[in-house]
This record gives sequence, C-alpha cells and structure tokens, in this order.
Amino acid sequence: MTQALRLGIAGLGTVGVGVVKIVRQHADLLQARTGRPIEITAVSARDASKDRGVNLSGYAWETDPVALAQRDDIDVYVELMGGENGPAKASVEAALASGKDVVTANKALLAIHGQELAEKAEAAGRVIRFEAAVAGGIPVIKSLTEGLAGNEITRVMGVMNGTCNYILTRMQSQELGYNALFEECAQLGYLEADPNLDVGGIDAAHKLALLSSIAFGTKPNFDGIEIEGIQQISLDDIHQADDMGYRIKLLGVAQKTARGLVQRMQPCLVPSGSALGQLEGGTNMVVIEGDAVEQVVLRGPGAGEGPTASAVMGDVCDLARGLQIPTFGRPATSLQDAAPAITGLPAPYYLRLALFDKPGALAKVAAILGDAGVSIDRMRQYGHSDSTAPVLIVTHKTTRATLDVALDGFRDTDVVSGEPVALRIEEV
Amino acid sequence: MTQALRLGIAGLGTVGVGVVKIVRQHADLLQARTGRPIEITAVSARDASKDRGVNLSGYAWETDPVALAQRDDIDVYVELMGGENGPAKASVEAALASGKDVVTANKALLAIHGQELAEKAEAAGRVIRFEAAVAGGIPVIKSLTEGLAGNEITRVMGVMNGTCNYILTRMQSQELGYNALFEECAQLGYLEADPNLDVGGIDAAHKLALLSSIAFGTKPNFDGIEIEGIQQISLDDIHQADDMGYRIKLLGVAQKTARGLVQRMQPCLVPSGSALGQLEGGTNMVVIEGDAVEQVVLRGPGAGEGPTASAVMGDVCDLARGLQIPTFGRPATSLQDAAPAITGLPAPYYLRLALFDKPGALAKVAAILGDAGVSIDRMRQYGHSDSTAPVLIVTHKTTRATLDVALDGFRDTDVVSGEPVALRIEEV
Repeated sequence: MTQALRLGIAGLGTVGVGVVKIVRQHADLLQARTGRPIEITAVSARDASKDRGVNLSGYAWETDPVALAQRDDIDVYVELMGGENGPAKASVEAALASGKDVVTANKALLAIHGQELAEKAEAAGRVIRFEAAVAGGIPVIKSLTEGLAGNEITRVMGVMNGTCNYILTRMQSQELGYNALFEECAQLGYLEADPNLDVGGIDAAHKLALLSSIAFGTKPNFDGIEIEGIQQISLDDIHQADDMGYRIKLLGVAQKTARGLVQRMQPCLVPSGSALGQLEGGTNMVVIEGDAVEQVVLRGPGAGEGPTASAVMGDVCDLARGLQIPTFGRPATSLQDAAPAITGLPAPYYLRLALFDKPGALAKVAAILGDAGVSIDRMRQYGHSDSTAPVLIVTHKTTRATLDVALDGFRDTDVVSGEPVALRIEEV
Repeated sequence: MTQALRLGIAGLGTVGVGVVKIVRQHADLLQARTGRPIEITAVSARDASKDRGVNLSGYAWETDPVALAQRDDIDVYVELMGGENGPAKASVEAALASGKDVVTANKALLAIHGQELAEKAEAAGRVIRFEAAVAGGIPVIKSLTEGLAGNEITRVMGVMNGTCNYILTRMQSQELGYNALFEECAQLGYLEADPNLDVGGIDAAHKLALLSSIAFGTKPNFDGIEIEGIQQISLDDIHQADDMGYRIKLLGVAQKTARGLVQRMQPCLVPSGSALGQLEGGTNMVVIEGDAVEQVVLRGPGAGEGPTASAVMGDVCDLARGLQIPTFGRPATSLQDAAPAITGLPAPYYLRLALFDKPGALAKVAAILGDAGVSIDRMRQYGHSDSTAPVLIVTHKTTRATLDVALDGFRDTDVVSGEPVALRIEEV
C-alpha cells in the first residue's frame, strides 16, 4: 500500500486548521508510520477568503461539504464542522454513500444519529471513526474499543467537559461564585454558542452516549441519559463538600446493571484525594473499569487545536494502515436497545439543608430521613448569623427513589428553608 | 472473516491462565467484537499434571514450545514464558518462520532482541505484538503507536515497576526502611526470581527501551539506558524530599534531544502534587508528550493475572480484526540507530550531604558548588545529635557533568562525611 490516502476536510475552524498543520508538517513522519503518504486533496468552509494562518492554495475548494464528500479524488471525508443535523449529517451520509470512510469530531451528530449512520456505513462497507469526539486528545475510544476488547466493561465514567471542570475548580481555588465564572468563561471563549451545551451537561452527555455504546454493545441512547448541569452548584456546596473530604465534579457514569443501563451526567461528589477529585481546570479524565483490567485512568487535554487534531490524525493513521473496525466496536446491526435502568444503584448522598433555628428542627429532619429508610453516616451543623443554620448530611448508601421520599418530607415540614441540595457521592 | 482465530499458548503461569479464562468466559463477547471466534488449539508448559484451576483438557499439549509454535493448527503464537533467551526466543523465531503472528508479554526478549525479531517478522510478513510487556493492563503501546501517531513524540516517561513503587510509597507511609520492605516484598512474592531485575531498575528499563523505540523510530537500545536502582534510597531521603515538596520515584524518561537520545531509568524527585508524585503502591503510570497532544497520562495496574491477560487479549483481538502494524510502529528496517546523548539535559538536582559540625563547613560546600558553576535554589540544614549535620540542597538547573565536578569537590574536602546523595528532579 504505497498509494496516498487522500483526505477531504470540511470545516476549517481551530481543529480543521490543526489537522492541516499536522498533515503538512509531519508528512514524512506520517508516511514512515503508516507506510503511505497522507495528503489533503480538497477542503470546504464557508469563507474561502479568510486568512487561517495555513497555506491552503494547493487544495481544491468546495463551498458545499456534500460536494466535497462526493469527490472522486478523496478516500476519507473528515467532518469538522459540528452540528447534529444540517450539512454535517448530509455530508457524512453522502461520503458513506459514495464509498468514503469518515473521520469526525462531531459528538452531537453521533450521539443523536450514530445508530443510523453506523448502519449506513456498514451497508456501504465503510467505517466512521470519532476519537476526537470524546475527551479531545485522550485516545479513549481506541483504548475502550481495541485495547480493552478482552474485558467485559463494568463501568465507564469521566469528566468530559473542560469548561465545567474549569468553573468548578476555579470556584474552589478562587472563591468565586458560579455566575462570575460563567462570565469569565464567556469572555475567554470557553463556552459553546449555546452555553447550555456546556454548563447544562449536554456536550458531556453526548460523549457519554458514545462511550456507553462501545462499552456495553448498545445503541447510542442519548435520550436515556439522566442529565443535570452545574448551574445550581453554590460556593457553599464547594466549601462544605471540601470540608467533608470531597470535590464536586460534573461526572458522567455509564454502568450496566441487572436492572438495565445506567447513564448519568450530573454533578457528583468524589473523594478529594482520588484521581478524579484532583483533576484541575480544563483537563479531561476517563476511567474505564473491566472485569480483567480492573481500572484504567486516562487523563489529557479535552479540547484545543493540537489535542483534537491529534485525535483526528490518530483515526486517519488507522485508516491509512488499513484498520477497519465497526463504528461502535461491533456490527451496528448487532447493537442492543439500551433499556434504561428503572432504579439507579444505591450510593451515599450529600445533602445540604437550611434549617430554621428553632427547637426540635434537627430532630424532625432526622426523623424524616429515618422514616424514609435513609440512614445518616455523618452530619454537621455550621454556625450561622441569619435565621437558618446550614446542615450537611452524608447518608449511607440509598437509592435516589428512597432519598426522594425524604426530600419530599423536607418540603412538607416547617423546619427546612428553601430547596434542599442532594448530590450523589460516586465511589471511584 | 468468520474463520476462527486459533491460539497456541506457551506458558501457563498466572498470565497464561488469565488468558485461558478470558477466552473461555468471554467467547461470545470476543466474537461479537472481532467478528470471528477466538479459540485455543494447543498449549505448552513444563508440567502437564499440575492443577491450574482451569480446564485445559480440550487443548492439545506440547511439551516443547517450539513444536507448539510450529503447529499447523494455530494462527497466533502467544508467548508467556518469559526469559530473554532460551525457549522464548527459539519459539518466537519458530512461530514467525512458520507464518504465525506472535503476541508476547516478554519485555526482556524484545528489549534485547527486538530489532532482530522485528526484522524476522517483517521478512515473514508477520507481526509481533506486546501490549502486555509494558505497564500491564494500561493500553500504552496502542496509545503511543496508534492513537498518538499524528504526533512528534517529545518525551515518554513513567513509573513502570510496581514493586519499586510499592517499596518507595511504603517507605513514605509506613516509616519502614528499604531493607525491611525488600523483605516484605520477597515474602509477598512481589519480586522476580532475580530481585535485581526489580529493585535494580532493569525490568523497568526493558519497558522503557520498547517505548523509546516506538516513540522515536529508533532501534530498541537497552544497553544505551542509564540505569540506577532504588537500593540506595534511604528513609532520610524520602522524608527530606517530602519536606521540600517532592516524592521519590523510580522514573524512566526517554527524550530525543539535539544531542542524541536520552534514556534514563533512575530514582528521581517529582513534585508531590503531580500525577506521578501521587501514584501509590503497585500502580503504573506512563506520561506521553507530543507536539500536538501536549500531555496524556495513563494509569493502571502494572501486573497481575487479569490486567496482563487483558493486554494480551487486546493484541489477540487486534489480530482477529485484521490489524497488522509493524512491531515498533514502523518498518523494522527503517528504524534508526539510537545515538545515546553525550550529555543529558540540564535539570535541578536534590543533594543530601552529611556535614561535619565545624566552623566554615557550609561555606566550603557553597564555594565548591559555586566554583563548579552550580547555583543553589534552596538549602536547609537540619538539627542533629551526632557529629554531622544533614544538609539538603536543591540546585538550579545544571547538567549531571557539572554536578559531578562539585561532587568530586565534596569528596576532596574534609567537611563532608561519606558519599553525597544526588537525585535528579524531573519536571513533570
């Protein structure tokens, strides 16, 4: 195989430019490693006149990504435009239909339409690769699909949205509230055009849906993910979790249980000393647990030009080397429907209540928990200067359904002010 | 490809038994993932009568691993006996010569004979895969060879001998000296038959030679590695490094510099708060740095039945899926001779001296360092009850050659008692 592998790249934003740079700067290295030249034939983006800091004059230009995807002189269609519908979907379908393999960084597209696209790829005898869609530069799709293929995967979890982790760790280190940090992120350009994709947990949930599919052989089921963002996390929660030995992370967890598939993306408490607890700033971390390997932890940059382009090029090199693996690690037609778990696995929970300062208040709270069947591991009441006292409770393991009974009880009583905060404590 | 992939397994120790268990327990899963059945045809070990806790009755038995490797009814020869020469080498050569791919966990074999064997594999159109040879269950060979193939690798480093890390972290946490922990490891079965392979840094250096070859496209060059074991590390060093904000790790570092290839396996200081600094017990960690991806950190179990068998099966699944990558990631005949760096890169150093308690002693030490061109970043002299005072120095960046001038100066003076300890501080 000394014929060049010819790429058509759609989308020349940060990542697209990063890919062009690698192909140009490392031409010899890529050929030495894969045994064949890797070349760019054509590119596509909205504005052909914009200076992107790389020389694009040698490449054909297509205004329409679908036309790019259908060109006879490309072997691999590299989709880096983003968006779950529109040109991204249409062009990927066109590429597959015209016999091209696809490399994409588009998590939304695959989380929503992954099953349909994987089936189309399979019918056409092509593959879709998407290392860059999950956790940026970390080779996590490869590790899960290939390196750990001998394992029954028992749990996959991770911190996969750098912006959320940046906000949460800055709240801790800088004593700044959520709103101030949200503004900071907006000014730094850390937020998606729709910020809810980041802080609402949706972007990270897209990634979890893909990991979950590979791990458990199920159809990607984004709609089956329980999603909660970080907007409600207060500086008090950060401090008081810290005081109890925990950090708050937007943590995705996928786990196959006897009761069905659990998929959660929500703020959780993890031990401060754990690898997840110590993860700072925009870095991502994915933890994979399997019956043979026990636990593997992968950490790296979750975004950015170089890291994301590195992941795209890993996929391109695989294709140049002739690797053809089904999109989600096994034939698309064999993927099972993921029945969402009716009830989640029990876990300890962190509760924060504002208790009116009157006799018997704490006793009432304790009784409500006891009646619901929730037992208390640790409890702290803090000093206070206003009419309510902050009370923190770490429960023993309980299900969310059981806990909800107690939370309803708090709402019905006259000793708890406002809405109680309840966060799961994940064993990591 | 629905034909079964047929394995012949030589060596039925812990890892071999682990592989047999996975093939038996996960037959359906492996077939779903790779598209074809994976079967064991024949096995080989010294003692056929021994109860290994798995049912081996369905497999042909060969006393001679070379005969196993040559059988017509196997496609992949899985070498799990170990040893850099003897039956391991002879049988791997026989397997390649008779058209089989090879999967092995044998780091010594490949570190010493890797170039020769990779060339033989290539000439025969076969591949050798060795994920299990480096860092147990962590898919590090795959990440480096495939996932990060778009990067010029700038540095690879890691803690890759679990026994050494167990000893060093127990020294820290249990206040036990090296000798006591060496005994503990011997009793727990944590040491190789020749313990110097572990505590002398040789086993970890074998692994570094393999990573280095893949990272830099050079022939594996075990003899070019500067190796130093952990036998000289005292409890004082552990404490005093801690006091300065560091942990001592047996750290392997491979780095391509303008002066040649640097390969070191030696006790180093790393910041206590870094991922490497926080690595406890027998766990392994590999850090890969590339020009695009920046830094990826991989952590997991470095040994044991399940994790090592997981790595072996990752390679087997790759072969079942048809992946054929040259042994060290590019054609063996294209690998360059690794010219060892004449002088290493500058780094800060940790020095521990025992200073005779007399006027002007510290001034003499400072003068010797100054004359050699070594400047002091931090210095501490500790209280003492005997005739010598412990003095700790953290230098600014200097080369080892420059530092050696100062160490010679200490030996020639009358104010330093015994041999000074000098450990590199690695920037991680």
